[in-house]
Amino acid sequence: MLNDTHNPGLRSWVETANSPGADFPIQNLPLGVFRRKGSADAPRIGVGIGDQILDLHRASELGLLEALPRAVVEAAAMSTLNGLMALGQGSMSQLRRELVAILHANGRRAEPDSLVPIEHVELFLPADIGDYTDFYASIFHATRVGEIFRPKNPLPPNYKHLPIAYHGRSSSIVPSGTPIRRPSGQTRGEGDQPVFRPSERLDYEVEIGVFVGTGAGQPLTMAESEGHIFGLCLLNDWSARDIQAWESQPLGPFLSKNFATTVSPWVVTYEALVPFRSPAFARDGGDPQPLPYLRSTFNETAGGFDVNVNVSLRSEAMRMSGAESVALSAGSLRDMYWTPAQMLVHHASSGCSLRPGDLLATGTVSGADKGSEGCLLEMTQNGATPIRLPDGETRAFLADGDVVTMRAFCERAGYTRIGFGRCEGRVLAAVARRD
Amino acid sequence: MLNDTHNPGLRSWVETANSPGADFPIQNLPLGVFRRKGSADAPRIGVGIGDQILDLHRASELGLLEALPRAVVEAAAMSTLNGLMALGQGSMSQLRRELVAILHANGRRAEPDSLVPIEHVELFLPADIGDYTDFYASIFHATRVGEIFRPKNPLPPNYKHLPIAYHGRSSSIVPSGTPIRRPSGQTRGEGDQPVFRPSERLDYEVEIGVFVGTGAGQPLTMAESEGHIFGLCLLNDWSARDIQAWESQPLGPFLSKNFATTVSPWVVTYEALVPFRSPAFARDGGDPQPLPYLRSTFNETAGGFDVNVNVSLRSEAMRMSGAESVALSAGSLRDMYWTPAQMLVHHASSGCSLRPGDLLATGTVSGADKGSEGCLLEMTQNGATPIRLPDGETRAFLADGDVVTMRAFCERAGYTRIGFGRCEGRVLAAVARRD
Repeated sequence: MLNDTHNPGLRSWVETANSPGADFPIQNLPLGVFRRKGSADAPRIGVGIGDQILDLHRASELGLLEALPRAVVEAAAMSTLNGLMALGQGSMSQLRRELVAILHANGRRAEPDSLVPIEHVELFLPADIGDYTDFYASIFHATRVGEIFRPKNPLPPNYKHLPIAYHGRSSSIVPSGTPIRRPSGQTRGEGDQPVFRPSERLDYEVEIGVFVGTGAGQPLTMAESEGHIFGLCLLNDWSARDIQAWESQPLGPFLSKNFATTVSPWVVTYEALVPFRSPAFARDGGDPQPLPYLRSTFNETAGGFDVNVNVSLRSEAMRMSGAESVALSAGSLRDMYWTPAQMLVHHASSGCSLRPGDLLATGTVSGADKGSEGCLLEMTQNGATPIRLPDGETRAFLADGDVVTMRAFCERAGYTRIGFGRCEGRVLAAVARRD
Repeated sequence: MLNDTHNPGLRSWVETANSPGADFPIQNLPLGVFRRKGSADAPRIGVGIGDQILDLHRASELGLLEALPRAVVEAAAMSTLNGLMALGQGSMSQLRRELVAILHANGRRAEPDSLVPIEHVELFLPADIGDYTDFYASIFHATRVGEIFRPKNPLPPNYKHLPIAYHGRSSSIVPSGTPIRRPSGQTRGEGDQPVFRPSERLDYEVEIGVFVGTGAGQPLTMAESEGHIFGLCLLNDWSARDIQAWESQPLGPFLSKNFATTVSPWVVTYEALVPFRSPAFARDGGDPQPLPYLRSTFNETAGGFDVNVNVSLRSEAMRMSGAESVALSAGSLRDMYWTPAQMLVHHASSGCSLRPGDLLATGTVSGADKGSEGCLLEMTQNGATPIRLPDGETRAFLADGDVVTMRAFCERAGYTRIGFGRCEGRVLAAVARRD
């Protein structure tokens, strides 16, 4: 629900939060887990504001959170967001209100030492992620990928009936900035005789991650599911296409995805996103309606999130020559065929237990138009039409040394733009074999 | 390596451990996590011996573990096995030696209150399972299932080159005895128009679970991988075949598997299994050799585990009439096409991080012969030829009220038989829909 915390007139005494185009204005207040560089302290929860972090542990020591229930204050003093996630949206709303009271221009200024410049900290995974699930919710992505691998039946018959997903690997989720080692693996060689070698078709996929707030031990209704969304982040589902093509039948992707998944360290909370809700995907007349368990009026009118995502790349050669990164694509979460609420309802429909901190990813965010393809597989038609970089370089897939940077933001007339920060990783050469 | 702890002449002062056919003789010493029924204490690690549990926390208080390194004693006082898992096989071997010293017939008898009858406790999951991976390692299972769903190409072209696997759901792993709610989900209706309803094809799959001991952050060699096996348990990969058939393309099983996975609460340790190692699957002349990263001389001669598994079923009607459960199948882990060491090496080959307590399951343990099929899908040819139960009942798939019980044991001439205990679950009716 819209409230005073979304007021575009709000300004912060942290001046960098008031710059037009800042990712973290006072209307955003994303949560992350950080530690001062070089410190050995336990990680702490912080709130992004301009180019600073409000240290919630220190804020609590200074008595700035006194108006909040004890459970919220205790959860805010932990080293992951899981405690806050478990408390639910009501508590998060209380916290947001207090943070605005502290950080707005005439607010109860936090003491200086409760603020830390973001450039002075390392940021960790925001949560202890129990299980990670990856969806496949862009029909444009699914169709383009299907045309490459299954030209006769690009879109599987179930696609328009259920949000397709598979379980991913939580142990290899890393925060933005972690270098990504090129994986080795089996790929198809001559005549179905495989070879084991470093992947020659390393790709990224730009996705949005959805963190589960309060858990669920039984099926959810569409009305309930919105209440289980804690917040969103950016996610790069690094993919080794050659390994994927050989291993994925009949049980789905495995090693082609489980070597690394990068998330942005900041979680943009559910309430911060209220001004940026959008209708669910506009199905055309020929499309089937979802079954009743995946439908609600709210979802149809406002189940989507209007989050813009973009991807850029900077090669090693570009870095050496001082060239800036080049934009590769720009898309929107608005274009996904399924909403996060539908993903949650479908996920829990079997009785599958969802826990605070579990992560759902949307699948590659790709739109209908050229320039909105969220991975190289789509953009280069599986490598057939490489993209051009400055200085004569081309890319069918990623090269060692490439830095892939994803960004996301929401903007809408009458509201303050909010950003997600960066989700970034640099590709390292494969490890040498040791037999 | 075989040592004094495997001596078949060893007897325990816990007399029930000496009965022929006991699952937990002194040569076994499986580890579990328990609490006295009705207690609110933190769960404790215990060792199964006959029909008793040696309470390691209490044993430590009584000074019985004084000869062990401090790290082992501290890990043994935790509420999950993860600490012991992280310490590795050397520490586990030290612990095993001390346990034999305490429990053998002329040993340092534990004080009476360090022993608790198993029937007086509840048993929990043995570990905090970070990630769960399910393999597909029986070629007999894969072929029979393939003949049902892909008659033209029953065995995928990659099958003999890599141990196929997919990521499962760790949040829904439950210990033996937990009731299993029949899942609802989308299944194919008339003309590809799906319907949402309780699964009509609920099945079990008998598998062996492999717990990861020390973790790995980079690829492993075959020589290294054996050292990362902590121990084995029984596992039931409950499966909803109708949901599976509709959802699994293109990204694999999801809701058809993630509603519940049952594990036996006891972990039979790596060292207890030394006498029961067996050669890897004997590939026939036409089969390709695995690629070098999946090969070692040790693996060929002793990479397998000769673990017998069997499944029995007792329906509600049988329970009411007092009939005992009926045997459905009996197979052996010896018959798997891939060994646990090969599964670990393949899993880590991408650089995928493995953590202490991660669980790998082998996939359905099925052999070549009739009577060795490890699930109803195979046994009834997808429901076409139902099996007969006493009193005229038949089963194509599981009915509400059915109790599925899995057991496993190892036996070999010259060694003492060891057992895995039970992996059991009763099917409850589906939850009613709430829209």
